Parts: sequence; structure tokens; C-alpha cells
Amino acid sequence: MPNHLTTLDTPAALISLEKMQRNIARMQQQANALGVRFRPHVKTTKCADVVAAQRQAGATGITVSTLKEADQFFAQGVTDILYAVGMAPHRLAHALDLRQRGCQLQILTDSVQGAQAIADFGKQHGHAFEVLIEIDTDGHRSGIQPEDAVLLEVGQVLHQGGMRLAGVLTHAGSSYELHTPQALMQLAEQERTGCVRAAERLRQAGLPCEIVSVGSTPTALAAASLQGVTELRAGVYVFFDLVMRNVGVCREEDIALSVLTTVIGHQADKGWAIVDAGWMAMSRDRGTSKQQRDFGYGQVCTLDGNPLPGYVLSGANQEHGIVSAEGAADTDIVQRFPTGTRLRILPNHACATGAQFPEYHALADDGSLQTWGRFHGW
Amino acid sequence: MPNHLTTLDTPAALISLEKMQRNIARMQQQANALGVRFRPHVKTTKCADVVAAQRQAGATGITVSTLKEADQFFAQGVTDILYAVGMAPHRLAHALDLRQRGCQLQILTDSVQGAQAIADFGKQHGHAFEVLIEIDTDGHRSGIQPEDAVLLEVGQVLHQGGMRLAGVLTHAGSSYELHTPQALMQLAEQERTGCVRAAERLRQAGLPCEIVSVGSTPTALAAASLQGVTELRAGVYVFFDLVMRNVGVCREEDIALSVLTTVIGHQADKGWAIVDAGWMAMSRDRGTSKQQRDFGYGQVCTLDGNPLPGYVLSGANQEHGIVSAEGAADTDIVQRFPTGTRLRILPNHACATGAQFPEYHALADDGSLQTWGRFHGW
Repeated sequence: MPNHLTTLDTPAALISLEKMQRNIARMQQQANALGVRFRPHVKTTKCADVVAAQRQAGATGITVSTLKEADQFFAQGVTDILYAVGMAPHRLAHALDLRQRGCQLQILTDSVQGAQAIADFGKQHGHAFEVLIEIDTDGHRSGIQPEDAVLLEVGQVLHQGGMRLAGVLTHAGSSYELHTPQALMQLAEQERTGCVRAAERLRQAGLPCEIVSVGSTPTALAAASLQGVTELRAGVYVFFDLVMRNVGVCREEDIALSVLTTVIGHQADKGWAIVDAGWMAMSRDRGTSKQQRDFGYGQVCTLDGNPLPGYVLSGANQEHGIVSAEGAADTDIVQRFPTGTRLRILPNHACATGAQFPEYHALADDGSLQTWGRFHGW
Repeated sequence: MPNHLTTLDTPAALISLEKMQRNIARMQQQANALGVRFRPHVKTTKCADVVAAQRQAGATGITVSTLKEADQFFAQGVTDILYAVGMAPHRLAHALDLRQRGCQLQILTDSVQGAQAIADFGKQHGHAFEVLIEIDTDGHRSGIQPEDAVLLEVGQVLHQGGMRLAGVLTHAGSSYELHTPQALMQLAEQERTGCVRAAERLRQAGLPCEIVSVGSTPTALAAASLQGVTELRAGVYVFFDLVMRNVGVCREEDIALSVLTTVIGHQADKGWAIVDAGWMAMSRDRGTSKQQRDFGYGQVCTLDGNPLPGYVLSGANQEHGIVSAEGAADTDIVQRFPTGTRLRILPNHACATGAQFPEYHALADDGSLQTWGRFHGW
């Protein structure tokens, strides 16, 4: 039993280093085996130490969801950065500043209007932005459909406008809604073929398209082939979570992030133990509520991280969580988890839970603990 | 049209100062009219400037949900602080340190075991903690039922153990599930009578019980009488939100917190505008999903804060939100909200949304903007 976990204040975000390293190695091996570069999405952790471990394992460059992430990681020496959210015109000055300071920032657009704004701003400032076109391969969110005529128009606006048309990018985020290997493999193939097709259309039109970037944690792990793709992206795989467990791409024992909590009281008649991990610690994410296995606000584990089957965080207020057994009330709850008992809770969604904390506590197998900062805000 | 809102980076958390001041005045007047002290819960904002405005309007002391909140506000000169979450034994040293440095910190318990831990620690350190007993008046969360024999036992453990038994406290959090004035008034009366009854039982047993503290935003505003009560608590009233609008204690135009966002793209066929306020900005709170009016992830407003009826944030990924019309797809969405358009989103839950931001931007009626920090973590 690691002693540090009995003295750390709660709630606290714990990383199992051994599990994290295993998850990092697994995804890197997948990218290596499929012959593509791997560019992790750092929005999951916003943590320099985690990203260092990903780069150490072979990741080339990073993906970010905000320019603050780009600023922070560029300040830490990462220069190859893809900003994978559609470029808002008012952020072009910020992007230009990063590029002029030596950051190889790539930006994204999915409309003629957006491409024109980039080209106009670039021309005005004598700068050729590196731009990817976002492709929609699953109807999930943003992007241009591979066969849409607008694709070539956007490519031409960028290319003729003097920008560097760097490639195409897609994210099959609807993979989070699946839960069978067949469906995941099919979606991975749909993601690949859609993005490769878009690249081919651009090239056939005489436009450059070097990068073909795809990925989401489930499709990245399910892909059987990435022919025509040049790089893979994924974020949550580094920690995994209960949503990913339900999607079927990890086991509970692979989940590297948990929230350390203390029992602060009970409602014995109801079979409740009250803990100090409420939604402020876990986040309000209820991603498992629509999946085949609903974990409430999280799976309860012992202090050493072993899941206690049937015990979930069934309710959450801001700084109060309710631990209870599924089904009939546990009439022994007070004896089972006396006040002061420490538990760990596996989260529904590692990106959302991590964001609630100013730092992680990284726990090694020998019980030693390191504090790793993470940043917050925009 | 305030100019600052067109240059501020997005997403950003905006406070309408005029609405906030109106909400503060309304609750303070309610407490004054009912003849009780008002002790705002600062967990909603974690912001010194907001709390200064509450104190300026007449609030006496504050309520906190973490000892970090106590630390931060004590450092800013607030000394009368109630920590309204059941005391975990491992936090007693922290509480003692605050008290020894001059903070009049009150702590809470709802069990014999908890009371004994406080008394033992106090005796060991020669210190009389000021302790309130938590009362359960609506079966919502923690606390001892008013007629439970354990109440007197806890009181005796504290009193005979040399602690200062300061009073009783309850929070009828189930008020968030109601939506009629009658039901709210009834619950407010149940909260009052239950807590007053617990105080009477302690006094009849010869125990001291000076403080009778009740409140939640809905019951505080619905209470017709607070006879026997000495202080009222509420938190979210300072901003209000869509959940409170559905509960029926505010109007949309009273909601003082909104998230400023920029349109970054579209899916025209689906009637979607994509904005840069995803769940990282709004939080994952879907508190209106079970209420009579579901606002998705929030109500869309113009840049100057006027609600656009029927337009909601219907979906959210980490840094992407989907703005759409309820019902049939809005085929004019691209023209209605071109890329670069700025909108404001009213949140489901102001406590959860505020927590996603490192600072608020407080907007005065003259268009001037102040940046107000808020803290994060434990």
C-alpha cells in the first residue's frame, strides 16, 4: 500500500505511471505497425510531463485544441504543432506570431470563407500559413465531405492565395458511440478512405496534399490498414477511461487516471457513503449514461486501484459524491467504508476529469509520487 | 454594442455587473425582510470581487465548500467563514491552522464518529473548534434527521468533549428538482421547521445551539417565514442560470453569467453553426435535461446578451459547440451567423461553467470591462 496516498490531500488526480506508459507504447506500436507518424492530441492532459513521455516513445509533433496549448508547448520546446480546430479569423494574428517566433504551426479550415480569410491575412502580412483542410468522414462535427465540390474550391483559394496547402485532416468522433470491433474497424476504414479520397481529389486537381491525417482513439486502435494515410492522431488513449472501456478499446485495468477521495460521512439507511469527490473533481461528464454499462460518475476502486465491482459514484454535488452499491442498498456501508477511508474513482471521461485539477500526481510502481502541473483556460 | 466584446479572445466568461448587482440586492433584501443574517456560498464564483460586492450589500461572513476557499478568502481579509462540508478527520490540522491564525472557521459534522474525531483532535491540541451539526431536512444528501436520537448524541460528544457546539445547519438541495412556487414554499417551510426542530431538541437537552442556518437559492427566495432561523445561505443566486430559470426563481434576463463565443464554421445542410464554446467552456453540466425545458448546453444570445428564442447549444465536444435551431434545421444558418460572428451562451449551471475559466470579465453598462480572477483546485 503506497504511503503517499494516505497523506495526499483529497480529492486528487492520480496517474498510474505504469499504465500510462503501457498505453503510450500500445498506441505508438500501432502507428509504427501501420507505417504512419503519430501525433498525440495533448488536449487530454495539457501536461508537459505526459507529452514528454509520448515524444520519448516516438511521437512526432503534437495536436492542440487551443492556441494556449500551442503557446505553452512551444515555450517548452515543441515546434511541430497542429491546431486541429477550425481557424477563427480573429486568431490569425496569434497564429502568425507563433509562426514568426519559429513554431511550425499548422492551421485548419473547412470553408471558402475561412480559406479566404487565411489567404487575405497571410497576403497582407507577407506570410504563407501552412493549412490543412478538414474533411468530414462521419457526419459527426466539422469538415467538408470528400466528394463535395467545395473541397477543390477551398484548396484553390489557399493555393492560389499563396498559402501552403499542407494536406487534409479528419476525426471520426462518432467512434465514441460504437462498441463492437467490427463497427470500429468499419468506421476506421471509412475514416481512412474518406480522407485519402479527399487527398486524391486535391492532387488530381493539381493541388499539393502531402499530409493525410486521421484519428480518434477508437478508430486509431481498430484500424487494420492506414494505406494512403501519413499520420495518426489520438488523445484519450494515454489515460483511457470508462467510456473507452465501454467502446471496447481498453479494460478497466488499463485506465491510468483515477481520482483519490476520502469518505466524509454516510447515510446508512440508504447504503450511501459520502465522499469528497463531487462533480467539481469528476466533472459533470456522464458519458457512460448512454452506453451499455452506466458507471454513474465513476467506478469505485480500493486505495491501491482495484475496482470494487458493483460500487459506483452514483451521485455528485459540487464537493460531495455518493458511493453506493448498484441494486439493493448496502446495509454494511458504514463498516465497509468508515469515515476517513480512501478510495479511488475511475472517471467516465479522462479529458473532462483531468481538466478539473491544477495538477496530476504521478504514481510509480514503487509508490513514489511526482507532481505534474497542467494548465487551464484559454 | 460594447466594443470590448468584439476584441476579447473567446471563449470567455462574462458577468453582467448590473444583473449581478440586482441579484445580490434581491437576496440581501429577502434576508433582511425575513430578519436573518445572510452568508453567501462563495463556491459559485471563487472570486474576491464578487464576494466583495456581496459583503458590500450586507452579507455577514461567507460559506465555503473547500478549505482552499477558506484559505484564499481569509488571506483577503474575510474572517467569518463556515466550511459547509462534513469535516474529514485528515483536514482537522488544516482547520486548526486557520483558526490559530485568526480565522473564525466553523466546521460541520453529522455523525458520532465525526464528532468524536473533532473532539479528540481538539482536546489533543488544546483547541475548542466551533462546530455545527448538519441536519437532513429533505433526504437529499448528508445530515441527521431532526428527530433522530443520534442528534443529541453528536451534540453531547461535542459539548462534553470541550468543543463549542455552535448550532445546526441544513441545505434543502432537492429544491433544484422543483418548479412551482407552492412546492418551493413548502420545501422552504420543511427546511425551516426541520432545522428549528433540531435546534429545539438540542436546547431541550441542555445543549447550546445559537446558530440555525438554512438555505439553497430556491428555498431562500421562496421562504415566507424564517422564524427560529438565524442565518440564510445561498450561492448560485448571484449569477442565476437556466436550471434556476426552470425552477422558477429567476428569468432568463436575470442570468448574469454568459460565455462569449465565436462562430468558427458551419454544416449548412444540418443547420449547424460551429462555435468555439464546447464543453470545456460550458462544462458538461446538462442540468436542464431533466427539467420541463431542455436548453442543451445553453441558450444562445446575441452579442449584447439578448436571447435568441429557439437557438440552443445543441451539442458540445471539448472545444467545439453546435449552435442550432430547435425543430427543423435552419437553412439560413450560414447567413444568420457567418464565421466570425460573436454570440453569448447562457449556461445551465453557473457554478460548473464558471469553474472552467481562470477569470471572469465583468461588463458594466457603459461597456467597460474588468478582469476578475477566480481560483481553481483544492
